[in-house]
Amino acid sequence: MQLPRVLICGSLDFALQECKSIFNGTAEVIFMDCSSREELLTEFQPGHDYDGISGIIRHWNAFDITGPFDKEFIECLPSSVKYIASLCAGYEMIDIDACKERGILVSNTPGVGDAATATTALYLMISSLRCFTEGELNIRSGLWRPPSVAKRAHDLEGHTLAIIGLGGIGLRFAEFAHAFPMHVVYHNRHKLPQAPEYCEYFDAEHLDEMLANADVLSVHVPLNKHTERLVDWQMIAKLKRGAVLINTARGRVIDESAMIKALEEGQLSAVGLDVYPDEPHVNPRLLEFPNATLLPHLGGVSFEVQKLQELHALMNLREFLCTGTAPDVVPELRS
Amino acid sequence: MQLPRVLICGSLDFALQECKSIFNGTAEVIFMDCSSREELLTEFQPGHDYDGISGIIRHWNAFDITGPFDKEFIECLPSSVKYIASLCAGYEMIDIDACKERGILVSNTPGVGDAATATTALYLMISSLRCFTEGELNIRSGLWRPPSVAKRAHDLEGHTLAIIGLGGIGLRFAEFAHAFPMHVVYHNRHKLPQAPEYCEYFDAEHLDEMLANADVLSVHVPLNKHTERLVDWQMIAKLKRGAVLINTARGRVIDESAMIKALEEGQLSAVGLDVYPDEPHVNPRLLEFPNATLLPHLGGVSFEVQKLQELHALMNLREFLCTGTAPDVVPELRS
Repeated sequence: MQLPRVLICGSLDFALQECKSIFNGTAEVIFMDCSSREELLTEFQPGHDYDGISGIIRHWNAFDITGPFDKEFIECLPSSVKYIASLCAGYEMIDIDACKERGILVSNTPGVGDAATATTALYLMISSLRCFTEGELNIRSGLWRPPSVAKRAHDLEGHTLAIIGLGGIGLRFAEFAHAFPMHVVYHNRHKLPQAPEYCEYFDAEHLDEMLANADVLSVHVPLNKHTERLVDWQMIAKLKRGAVLINTARGRVIDESAMIKALEEGQLSAVGLDVYPDEPHVNPRLLEFPNATLLPHLGGVSFEVQKLQELHALMNLREFLCTGTAPDVVPELRS
Repeated sequence: MQLPRVLICGSLDFALQECKSIFNGTAEVIFMDCSSREELLTEFQPGHDYDGISGIIRHWNAFDITGPFDKEFIECLPSSVKYIASLCAGYEMIDIDACKERGILVSNTPGVGDAATATTALYLMISSLRCFTEGELNIRSGLWRPPSVAKRAHDLEGHTLAIIGLGGIGLRFAEFAHAFPMHVVYHNRHKLPQAPEYCEYFDAEHLDEMLANADVLSVHVPLNKHTERLVDWQMIAKLKRGAVLINTARGRVIDESAMIKALEEGQLSAVGLDVYPDEPHVNPRLLEFPNATLLPHLGGVSFEVQKLQELHALMNLREFLCTGTAPDVVPELRS
């Protein structure tokens, strides 16, 4: 009996060894060997190398070649493809509607990077409140302390962190902030029954009140049509003057020009960003702010997270081949 | 009746208002008005402006003028001086033996900056383990992620933090690390009865075992003749290969050339430093390491800490004037 074939788009830097044993007896593993999206889409066509494959592992490290799994990409897939196992929690790079139309299930790796991303948010918040990036830029320019830094730097302790989107990452971040302790408030569409008691909930009607009392605002929502530019000038203007804005979610959740204007005018005293609207491009204007802590989307990037992500994606695809479904299928495609 | 006079060496940037009410009816407050140490020492002499003062507030922000309160300085003080209230937890800038000889009590402000300094250690640890400084340097040079960063970055979760010196700062840092959770081990001269259960103690005899299992080593000891160059090449060589070294204590607690050698050879994968042997001078060799996170001694620098430090120093001096002693007199001078 011929085994189904699965295509790995990307290099398994951490779980290559495990990949062999995971699919042993279940599937034949093919590694993508294309240098461009065009070439890849051609190999999907009848009679070409990737015709007849059953599933795909989508690794973010192959993005330069694959590009997004958009409508065009999905429509080029052979009809044999029934499953895409994507790495990462976010899956805005995959056209879920197009997958649905073709009867393809999609899974992500939810939860795997939550603690690592929350740690990144914590780092950005400490840096922003305490002027640490400015300190490091100073020292690396041969200077010492930034002028009047003691008047501008603030402890975390006793200040208020407002979280929009208390999912896995937001919840972990709330736990870290509570250790100082900070006062933690949050807004979700609905009050979260499992939220710890120290997290104070504000519904849509009382959102303005939450914003007016926040020393730090941090967003932890997925990017979709409802959350694009969720944090706009109107929302930033409602924050306490001199508040800090943290983004480890997706760049487009914040209106970047409104954020820059608020930095210029002092409405925001600092920002901590791990994500940008047009990655890997970074608006050069941002680099001019010593009160901006800027990371190149490292939120979920660690040895441990990457290994777990690869393993989860491989296990999801294997589970699908064995049972016809998998634990991490995205909510939109669950039956 | 003439009130005793007290001299404030430094500017009270945060508690100037409170200073007036604290000494109201208790002392006459004089603010140092000298532009050099020489001038200041002259004003202490008989018949000059600061002759006859009873106590001094020593603010670190006047260090450029006062220099250290060393033997020469102490011996120049008028015999009327009976109390020096110093800001900061560390007091290695004051010659305690010389003060003892002259019958002068000295207080510091212990505990006030503990959480802020522990927060700084946490920031340096996150940056070191996750390669965040390298990420920020990259992005500010117009690049994106550092090469192979996913292979080099590590989560805090599950790794081992070794603390040398579980005092107020070390204990707070242990609490933060426990939130991830990290495994926390420590070495003190004696086992601490009040240490939380999750902090595993290693005595001098088992120190090597602790070092061999540490992913991160962080020092939290005061600087004195016992702790100078405590972390030397011998100790660094006993760490797990690729460990991280954090210093928010004092620069001279670590042998800097041994640390640099260990960075060059990969024995240390990263360092996070807030302090240096010869501040504000920073060894330019350090600036060449993207895996060194470098802050200009900002550990206890925040609006809230500074204000509390100033208030504590003022209150200590007032208490001395009223009662002949004060709560924060340093251990060496307590009767």
